[in-house]
Amino acid sequence: MLISRLAVIGVGLIGGSLVRALRTAGEVGEVVGCGRGKPNLERAMELGVIDRYHHRVEEAVEGADLVFLAVPLGAMESAFRSMRGHLQPNAVITDGGSAKACVVEACRAAFGELPSAFVPGHPIAGTEESGVEASFAELYHNRRVILTPVEETSPEALEKVETMWRLCGSDVTQMSVEHHDEVLAATSHLPHLLAFSLVDTLSRMKENDEIFRYAAGGFRDFTRIASSNPVMWRDICIANKQALGKMMTLYIGEMQELATAVDQGDSELLLEIFSRAKAARDRYIDGIV
Amino acid sequence: MLISRLAVIGVGLIGGSLVRALRTAGEVGEVVGCGRGKPNLERAMELGVIDRYHHRVEEAVEGADLVFLAVPLGAMESAFRSMRGHLQPNAVITDGGSAKACVVEACRAAFGELPSAFVPGHPIAGTEESGVEASFAELYHNRRVILTPVEETSPEALEKVETMWRLCGSDVTQMSVEHHDEVLAATSHLPHLLAFSLVDTLSRMKENDEIFRYAAGGFRDFTRIASSNPVMWRDICIANKQALGKMMTLYIGEMQELATAVDQGDSELLLEIFSRAKAARDRYIDGIV
Repeated sequence: MLISRLAVIGVGLIGGSLVRALRTAGEVGEVVGCGRGKPNLERAMELGVIDRYHHRVEEAVEGADLVFLAVPLGAMESAFRSMRGHLQPNAVITDGGSAKACVVEACRAAFGELPSAFVPGHPIAGTEESGVEASFAELYHNRRVILTPVEETSPEALEKVETMWRLCGSDVTQMSVEHHDEVLAATSHLPHLLAFSLVDTLSRMKENDEIFRYAAGGFRDFTRIASSNPVMWRDICIANKQALGKMMTLYIGEMQELATAVDQGDSELLLEIFSRAKAARDRYIDGIV
Repeated sequence: MLISRLAVIGVGLIGGSLVRALRTAGEVGEVVGCGRGKPNLERAMELGVIDRYHHRVEEAVEGADLVFLAVPLGAMESAFRSMRGHLQPNAVITDGGSAKACVVEACRAAFGELPSAFVPGHPIAGTEESGVEASFAELYHNRRVILTPVEETSPEALEKVETMWRLCGSDVTQMSVEHHDEVLAATSHLPHLLAFSLVDTLSRMKENDEIFRYAAGGFRDFTRIASSNPVMWRDICIANKQALGKMMTLYIGEMQELATAVDQGDSELLLEIFSRAKAARDRYIDGIV
């Protein structure tokens, strides 16, 4: 069995699905939950996701050989601070945060230096749902998990976390913290901002009810991610503001170029942009890249 | 039978699906196709969508009591010009163009004045596929069709077109040409531009292959519409440039506001925008609006 006692700090979709997958694989012994809300933790007990729980991190991590942090990015530092001095010697720590530089900084700030047992990680999976109720064992199946080990990370800790995700059916890769944050800003954080801001722009227009009424299927798909958790996305935007800021500047520049092309009826430039985008999208969907 | 002889100018997804729905309803007699490409028209014959075809509009409309125009917006004026003087006296003309002011102007320019038999229309339906091969009888089922009759439009022509779409299972509504173009700029044309420009921005970055590789499900949905036909969307953007230009200005303004909020770590403003967007999106999906 890979993990004897797993402490899950934040028992929601991400933490709950990890536990379910490890239970299915038969690779986890006892699971201790931690969170602020009692109803959610009680529900997690009923669902058989966790075996017991504590509200305080220092108690939850006791005797755990693996600690998984699935709290909002803004709550990472305080969680790291609380576990300091309460971990057993061989405990490995990993997380599921959507941005990595900020988590590494939070960990360094809390521990004074980066513990060799800390393996920053990010499973690229999720739904618009949240809470333990929405969790399921197959969430990470065939999904990519990016681990961003730092210089201090020990090979043993890294191997344990890598094995854990492989047991969940994930495709595990490694990259640097900085590169992770750039790639995610481009493919996830920016698209979420675009969807939120499109729906918000429309909702601020006069007669917005009528406008939404005429929205077709494309609009529904395009804006699905605008139904995501606002608090989580606020945290992500702030946590990854450097990489995201760069992407927004690039994107606003392209939109202004397009606005000029539309205004001037620049048929050639519009066709060039649309064709290049379609080719990239079709190539991506066909799985060539 | 509502239509004795239907002339379909442009036998693709839109025109082909209309014919299939009318045939299923048993409300059309002979169907005459018109287009430039012989292979597509031959395929439409094989599929039983059309009974015969002509390459010239003037021949195709002969003896038709309803003419349906499903050509690209940029080809509307020349199609109207070609049919002038070749229509039978009681022929009703309608179209499926995604922008309406430009079609009305094209018709006026071609005929000198707007014929009372012309009913501008727009079925809010489609897929990323195109061509008669992709057409199917249920495309318009439970979809909205917007008719934008002008002052000159006769009540009889309007009624015939309205009945035609109802027979296809559509939910038919009327609005002014200007209002249609604003609503569609907001809910369809702008989202397509955003998707095209997002994918294009990423495809122009270094290491774009790798970036696309890490894109998750949200990205796939969000950018699905960037696989749409580039020529069609170039035509739509140019045809509806006034309403679209206004929406782009609004949207770029909101994106700039968001960029400042991210840069300054303005947590409250980000949360306000994301929460308002999520509420609007959830309300829209729940079908309250």
